Amino acid sequence: MRPRIDASQLPRGFEFSAIACGLKKSGLDLGLIVSETPASAACLFTTNRVQAAPVFASRVHLRQSRHKMRGVIVNSGNANCATGTGGISAAATTALKTAWELGRYHPSQILVCSTGVIGVPLPWKKIIKAIPRLVRTRTATATVFGQFMRAIMTTDTRPKFAAASCRIGGKRVRLLGCAKGAGMIHPNMATMLAFVVTDATASPNVLRRALREAVGGTFNAITVDGDTSTNDTLTLLANGASGARAIRSDNADYRKFLGALESICRSLALQIVADGEGAHRVIEIEVRGAPSERAADTIARTIANSPLVKTALAGGDPNWGRILSAAGRSGVRFNPERVEIRMAGILMCRNGHAHFFDERAAHRKLLAAHVSIVVNLRAGNSTARIWTCDFTGEYVRINASYRS
Amino acid sequence: MRPRIDASQLPRGFEFSAIACGLKKSGLDLGLIVSETPASAACLFTTNRVQAAPVFASRVHLRQSRHKMRGVIVNSGNANCATGTGGISAAATTALKTAWELGRYHPSQILVCSTGVIGVPLPWKKIIKAIPRLVRTRTATATVFGQFMRAIMTTDTRPKFAAASCRIGGKRVRLLGCAKGAGMIHPNMATMLAFVVTDATASPNVLRRALREAVGGTFNAITVDGDTSTNDTLTLLANGASGARAIRSDNADYRKFLGALESICRSLALQIVADGEGAHRVIEIEVRGAPSERAADTIARTIANSPLVKTALAGGDPNWGRILSAAGRSGVRFNPERVEIRMAGILMCRNGHAHFFDERAAHRKLLAAHVSIVVNLRAGNSTARIWTCDFTGEYVRINASYRS
Repeated sequence: MRPRIDASQLPRGFEFSAIACGLKKSGLDLGLIVSETPASAACLFTTNRVQAAPVFASRVHLRQSRHKMRGVIVNSGNANCATGTGGISAAATTALKTAWELGRYHPSQILVCSTGVIGVPLPWKKIIKAIPRLVRTRTATATVFGQFMRAIMTTDTRPKFAAASCRIGGKRVRLLGCAKGAGMIHPNMATMLAFVVTDATASPNVLRRALREAVGGTFNAITVDGDTSTNDTLTLLANGASGARAIRSDNADYRKFLGALESICRSLALQIVADGEGAHRVIEIEVRGAPSERAADTIARTIANSPLVKTALAGGDPNWGRILSAAGRSGVRFNPERVEIRMAGILMCRNGHAHFFDERAAHRKLLAAHVSIVVNLRAGNSTARIWTCDFTGEYVRINASYRS
Repeated sequence: MRPRIDASQLPRGFEFSAIACGLKKSGLDLGLIVSETPASAACLFTTNRVQAAPVFASRVHLRQSRHKMRGVIVNSGNANCATGTGGISAAATTALKTAWELGRYHPSQILVCSTGVIGVPLPWKKIIKAIPRLVRTRTATATVFGQFMRAIMTTDTRPKFAAASCRIGGKRVRLLGCAKGAGMIHPNMATMLAFVVTDATASPNVLRRALREAVGGTFNAITVDGDTSTNDTLTLLANGASGARAIRSDNADYRKFLGALESICRSLALQIVADGEGAHRVIEIEVRGAPSERAADTIARTIANSPLVKTALAGGDPNWGRILSAAGRSGVRFNPERVEIRMAGILMCRNGHAHFFDERAAHRKLLAAHVSIVVNLRAGNSTARIWTCDFTGEYVRINASYRS
């Protein structure tokens, strides 16, 4: 699931950089992705009504530059959210300085992302002061890409990345993605920040369509704690440096590219869940036999966000009753007397009541790194699949003392 | 908030009993409330689509007896839920045996409640065997009422009760309530089990109306973890033993009675939150200035169920940004730039961004047993108030090992 990256996997024409500018107590906290030429861009942002200043700034910049961007600057340690007009000004100034240092570009060619604590004014002077060195030290090596990944981390315990490639008209096209997640992960832009760069050639419209298709069963199918961040941003940049022909949305090239993009999104999404704050294991929840996809999805998400289900799974407890109960409060009408529940492949509930199983063997199986839960309503043909993680004491520890 | 109870507060004409029948590893696990004469009854049950066998049985019994009941038998240690037709039969047999032992009554005059683990067949023979002694030892003392309260507890750390009285036509009418809660607490019948008995005289219709009015701002305004139980039952019994004139729904008597009933429901609801699994403190969330009551309620509940807000409060962290973020993902449209947030009376957010406050003083205030959060949208005149508790490592510990 987590491949090693080497230089041959880096898409052409992108450079990376990362430094420590003092936003975090220690460690890298400022990162940069640069495209040698203006790259087509597609972004998906948080659906939270409260949106951070960098989200606002990036939206405006995308429109102003007609989705042709030069790069992305990202800081961790401060979300620059709920920071008023000062926050907007900080984000705009960051873009301005970066664009200037890169080559006197227009500031709207730069995307800005932030992650960290909400409501604390961004110490933007630290960033502005650091930008010249950040720009100067950019380079196209796997090592520095690794540093970039670390610079965007907050409570993540490890960097998350994925690479893929495909052939478009005989030329090799590379895709490389990285993400930070950990807390505040929820459907509808589940990741906090994710970046995918590719040397494919595609218009912003084609990129946007591919990105929307790719997130449905990946980023939008994971949840850690039901909280949607104010800063969620997923960015896809395509600079055409591979020299491959342009991808259009109605041919085999598009489907190859989409396949590669989906594989990256799926890998990143699952890495985010696996590294959910305090998580011990990934839980895959599949609802089958539902009367509609919407019903299946609602039930799967209710189970995935139930603290009682998630804490039971932290202890490897085959407590299928809590799964049935969560389904029951989802608001979906179904006949409990038909429900079948399997955990880790073991049938535990049939026709809505207990089916004999070996508790000890089940407990052992539920301590695995990946646990599947299948709920079959036996009331139709629709299915849904959602990934989440267990809910542990560490989650509470991390979040009860986040700012101290 | 938690008054001492003495014999003078016991409503006339009710007896209580409690014994250990072996459903729990140790301690009292079977309780009985009996009315000397058939009592008018009103019940509110869980809205979960999955309903336990005793809920089903009690619904049927209420209808069959036209809401005139002789008593309630309650067991802890097993929810008798998702137990199929065997579970229904167990609940029915329990009622039958109780009714017979009490005086050859019709089984439908008995309500049945269960609380505990879901999906494990109820060892009903233990209950049947214990009923004769349970019935024989019933008595009208405060001490035995105290034992009854303990017999219905699961992960509760303390019994919860409240008493009130009022004068109806010159006669004193007493009300006495108790509840068990702790986990799986959520709006729409937030308590797992609550019982209120009174020697007032009232028809089942009047009782039902009063009960519905009383729960809106009390039991239905609390949440511990967003999970709604399969067994939630709130029961109100009125046997008329005070000799006071009958309460009708259109006079001052009714309003006096409703006031007393509401005070009991509010006290029990707050005791449940204060004893939420692992809770250190009660959080009162008030949303003001909303465009509608529905909007205010939705935002208040989203904040109340946000794991990030609740864990921050476990650590006494004045992390108002998470409150704003939770409001933002509630689905309600509002202008974040107008929002004001106060925690423990301290203004922390004004016009949607940080307002200076003393972090250390705020931290100290947030470690109190009762913390208020006020979110003012400044977009209307509607308000809502919800109570919840903080989310601690103990919650996880309790629920990760519930059954072992």
